[in-house]
Amino acid sequence: MPCQSNEELNRLVSEAKKHTKHGEVADYIPALKKANRDDLSVAVYHSDGNCYSAGDIEQKLTLQSISKVLTLALALIDCGEECVFNKVGYEPTGDPFNSIIKLETSRSAKPLNPMINAGALAVTHLIKGESVADRLERIIAFIRDIAGHESITYSEEVAKSEFDTAYLNRSLCYYMKQDGIINENVEELLELYTKQCAIEMDCLDLSRIGLVFAMDGLDPVREKQIIPVEVARLCKTFMVTCGMYNASGEFAVRVGIPAKSGVSGGIMGSIRNRYGIGIFGPALDERGNSIGGIKLLEMMSKQYELSIF
Amino acid sequence: MPCQSNEELNRLVSEAKKHTKHGEVADYIPALKKANRDDLSVAVYHSDGNCYSAGDIEQKLTLQSISKVLTLALALIDCGEECVFNKVGYEPTGDPFNSIIKLETSRSAKPLNPMINAGALAVTHLIKGESVADRLERIIAFIRDIAGHESITYSEEVAKSEFDTAYLNRSLCYYMKQDGIINENVEELLELYTKQCAIEMDCLDLSRIGLVFAMDGLDPVREKQIIPVEVARLCKTFMVTCGMYNASGEFAVRVGIPAKSGVSGGIMGSIRNRYGIGIFGPALDERGNSIGGIKLLEMMSKQYELSIF
Amino acid sequence: MPCQSNEELNRLVSEAKKHTKHGEVADYIPALKKANRDDLSVAVYHSDGNCYSAGDIEQKLTLQSISKVLTLALALIDCGEECVFNKVGYEPTGDPFNSIIKLETSRSAKPLNPMINAGALAVTHLIKGESVADRLERIIAFIRDIAGHESITYSEEVAKSEFDTAYLNRSLCYYMKQDGIINENVEELLELYTKQCAIEMDCLDLSRIGLVFAMDGLDPVREKQIIPVEVARLCKTFMVTCGMYNASGEFAVRVGIPAKSGVSGGIMGSIRNRYGIGIFGPALDERGNSIGGIKLLEMMSKQYELSIF
Amino acid sequence: MPCQSNEELNRLVSEAKKHTKHGEVADYIPALKKANRDDLSVAVYHSDGNCYSAGDIEQKLTLQSISKVLTLALALIDCGEECVFNKVGYEPTGDPFNSIIKLETSRSAKPLNPMINAGALAVTHLIKGESVADRLERIIAFIRDIAGHESITYSEEVAKSEFDTAYLNRSLCYYMKQDGIINENVEELLELYTKQCAIEMDCLDLSRIGLVFAMDGLDPVREKQIIPVEVARLCKTFMVTCGMYNASGEFAVRVGIPAKSGVSGGIMGSIRNRYGIGIFGPALDERGNSIGGIKLLEMMSKQYELSIF
Repeated sequence: MPCQSNEELNRLVSEAKKHTKHGEVADYIPALKKANRDDLSVAVYHSDGNCYSAGDIEQKLTLQSISKVLTLALALIDCGEECVFNKVGYEPTGDPFNSIIKLETSRSAKPLNPMINAGALAVTHLIKGESVADRLERIIAFIRDIAGHESITYSEEVAKSEFDTAYLNRSLCYYMKQDGIINENVEELLELYTKQCAIEMDCLDLSRIGLVFAMDGLDPVREKQIIPVEVARLCKTFMVTCGMYNASGEFAVRVGIPAKSGVSGGIMGSIRNRYGIGIFGPALDERGNSIGGIKLLEMMSKQYELSIF
Repeated sequence: MPCQSNEELNRLVSEAKKHTKHGEVADYIPALKKANRDDLSVAVYHSDGNCYSAGDIEQKLTLQSISKVLTLALALIDCGEECVFNKVGYEPTGDPFNSIIKLETSRSAKPLNPMINAGALAVTHLIKGESVADRLERIIAFIRDIAGHESITYSEEVAKSEFDTAYLNRSLCYYMKQDGIINENVEELLELYTKQCAIEMDCLDLSRIGLVFAMDGLDPVREKQIIPVEVARLCKTFMVTCGMYNASGEFAVRVGIPAKSGVSGGIMGSIRNRYGIGIFGPALDERGNSIGGIKLLEMMSKQYELSIF
Repeated sequence: MPCQSNEELNRLVSEAKKHTKHGEVADYIPALKKANRDDLSVAVYHSDGNCYSAGDIEQKLTLQSISKVLTLALALIDCGEECVFNKVGYEPTGDPFNSIIKLETSRSAKPLNPMINAGALAVTHLIKGESVADRLERIIAFIRDIAGHESITYSEEVAKSEFDTAYLNRSLCYYMKQDGIINENVEELLELYTKQCAIEMDCLDLSRIGLVFAMDGLDPVREKQIIPVEVARLCKTFMVTCGMYNASGEFAVRVGIPAKSGVSGGIMGSIRNRYGIGIFGPALDERGNSIGGIKLLEMMSKQYELSIF
Repeated sequence: MPCQSNEELNRLVSEAKKHTKHGEVADYIPALKKANRDDLSVAVYHSDGNCYSAGDIEQKLTLQSISKVLTLALALIDCGEECVFNKVGYEPTGDPFNSIIKLETSRSAKPLNPMINAGALAVTHLIKGESVADRLERIIAFIRDIAGHESITYSEEVAKSEFDTAYLNRSLCYYMKQDGIINENVEELLELYTKQCAIEMDCLDLSRIGLVFAMDGLDPVREKQIIPVEVARLCKTFMVTCGMYNASGEFAVRVGIPAKSGVSGGIMGSIRNRYGIGIFGPALDERGNSIGGIKLLEMMSKQYELSIF
């Protein structure tokens, strides 16, 4: 067992758990409905290789929007900063993550940033490969490498469930296709995107990935630079400005940690030069973030002085 | 030849033709690009069965947005006013015909009216039938009946051309599917919609259809009520408030005739109890209306006192 | 007494009154709150000089948005069509009457049409005169002339009440001033506008004004052309496309009469070459139109075949 | 002279100056037009009391939007976090700083954050005091205290110039007054706001203020806690997420320093526990930020590893 239960973390998790009853498990993706609302677990992976945890950290979760950070990193490696920001912007937005308005009122359909769905779809569009299968394999291999965990794969069931009901994402894709932002087959892009979102891991994996970003792309355990420094730091910037959907501004004020959430209830966080955090708490607040996870990070930030501001 | 060339109409057409050079043939649908910018023809079909014309009125055009009026009539017959206006609204809009904003800022994705693309797609969704082929056949049979012309059909080439590039319409459909406005297969709906838009006829047919609406649904030649009075009048209302894309308000002021345009350059008009008008002039102004056709209708309205206001 | 009570109208009013309990008296202007929710009265002024009525047609009401039609007519007389439509557009809008969004998303702050508040303010801005007092006097004189009623004036109390709370109209004015649409002192323009909205009359006056528009600007009683034909018809066009706030489209379908409503509960209607209608029913529906008045017009339209469509 | 010219800074300024020719001096406020496009100066104030500079750091500039950070701090001190965020939100926005759309499409007129004009006006509204004069005096006293410079005051000329042309800000204020966000006299609020924006200082002052924020509210020179820690850190969070108008996201990626710009060409920056930066470079890019200033900060960030990400 690579991670040891920690008393202080257990205490914080107990405290944060009190809030889970005010949240709801995501129901728009059928396969996510099965999660247990009261679950909350956390793994904290330090740069010295030690790991501390609370709760059942071996429970599986799908990445969902957390994957947006990882494909952004791979797209930046694949085609460079100029190429990526030719397709998506840098700016945060107060609009909900699934908004289509900005695509129309802006002069072009260029999505505002890579963390909203439209932007993430445009980023996944840039992932290189011969076929959907090939591009998916490259994404998964990249994630396995960061997490140092060879058996990571995606959930067929969740991917199918999302693919079948992804009407809004199809709408966003076709809008961008009309405007020339993307030019591949929309169903293929959605297949790739929903599979990417359905990549499965546990909190421990998540904390390892958070650690690599915390170390500016270096895996301190294997002493290997997995993501170029510039790419890792750029990704963390977007985690701060747009990582928590349209609660990013409030999260920056209250917590101040580079973090990215997903509607599965996962949150990945990075404390520079210190540690990575992986959280799983499927009860969501009304803006789609893990309600227990946010509470936990808020307490950790106060207690350990983690805010970057 | 059922329609005789008329000197006064020829004079008006000559005058209106001077404006065609300021317009452009639609280029967003590849198959429409082949049209001749300087063409302008008109047929005027009177309730007594006499018909007058100017220009080559046997040239074929596809209905495009003009078909929206006809499917609205058929959907009203198929499922009634309450059913139709449960899916689309009554209100005109100053937004362009292809806008998606209103779907998002309104509380529901219900399109504002049946003449914008989103609304027309929701209306076509309501056309009854076992299959796309069956529903298309019903639309075509309905149009043949109104026009009194059994050989009317659709252009495979234009339909295919539109279907292949209908990204924005796909975006609108998926947005509405997300919100439960439509619940059929989007590709099937688009197949039906693009074939409906590609139904082909000439100005003479168009003027016959305009006449039936002018007579509140009665074909005066065959003395047959083809469209219920209420349905025909409701359709004419939308022709006035939203028939000319987002130039409808200005057209109402300058011309004041219930009319519906299409990006092929066609315009169908209805002068109550008097006659139907069919125009073909493929040079479009920047809002997608036949530039020569609008000029011609403006002159006819002044000369023959046709405004309903 | 110039108008005689009519049995059939009384019956229709009784029927329409059943709906007033579902409406609410306007409360955003303090002085309007005093109205009696169950009131409903109508005057119908025929071109032959005969007048029929039901209910207490001598009750006073303020014009509110009905005045927009009258200042539009005067502005068109004062500075011509080109000058007016340089400041406002022709297009209807599905947005609420007080929306500011279109001013921002359109390339310029030019209001969409003269019937929304922004447009009406831009139109009043064009009324000529040396001073606010002078311009107000010209507006009142114009209205007195149309109504053939020399003692018409405005309510100081209502004007003051509206002026004091007109924050949204101030917001619209300053937005347009920023963009050069208006360039006078905003407080002065608002003084003029709120006084114009507070012009007081009764249903009988309203029906006389409706008659003049019905006769394309001619007062048939005095045989005097008060408004140029073109101006009167243009005004009626806007009554049809945008006369009933953002219920104009539905009103066109259900009623089909050129009409303009105000939040005081007044409605002025015009039946071409036949008669003018003046209605007062202060209970409003959620879109700001007299709920009893609309019901009454719907029944009159069906019974007497009044729809222009 | 408290600040000594520094060779390395001089070199960076020379390099950054090459970009000023691509910018334009603000012209929407008449009094700002007089600035010299090619000016660029910087002061860097260290926590040990040493100060380094390049260019003419005694040139005066007005704070403009930089003042938004300072009134936010004072409002938080005056009425607390809950009170402030009852009036404005936490969320960044991709819309331009002067946008009014969000006020309408959001359910309430609550501005998205305290750094856009609407939000800053709502914050200034909360500054306590008996009168405009009294509140202004409190703002100025607060700023003098932070800068440790007793003679700081505002420019009557610039304040008047802005007050006279502040039509858009008036529009925003009246819109918020309609919705109950603000409830004071708009002209008085604008007087206070434009005077606050016209507060004048030089780069040296600006760097001292930046230092106090860098030290979480402590003035290390006088060893005095001037702003509570929580308030100072909260302000820096908004500097990161929304400090550079709608280029904040790109600035976070390229530079990563908490900073706030103004249309006068000023930028204040804070490097935690290290130093404050004051820049004056009046040539602006198209998003309203000092073009030379941004270039300079980008070079400083790279050279001295200043990014918080």
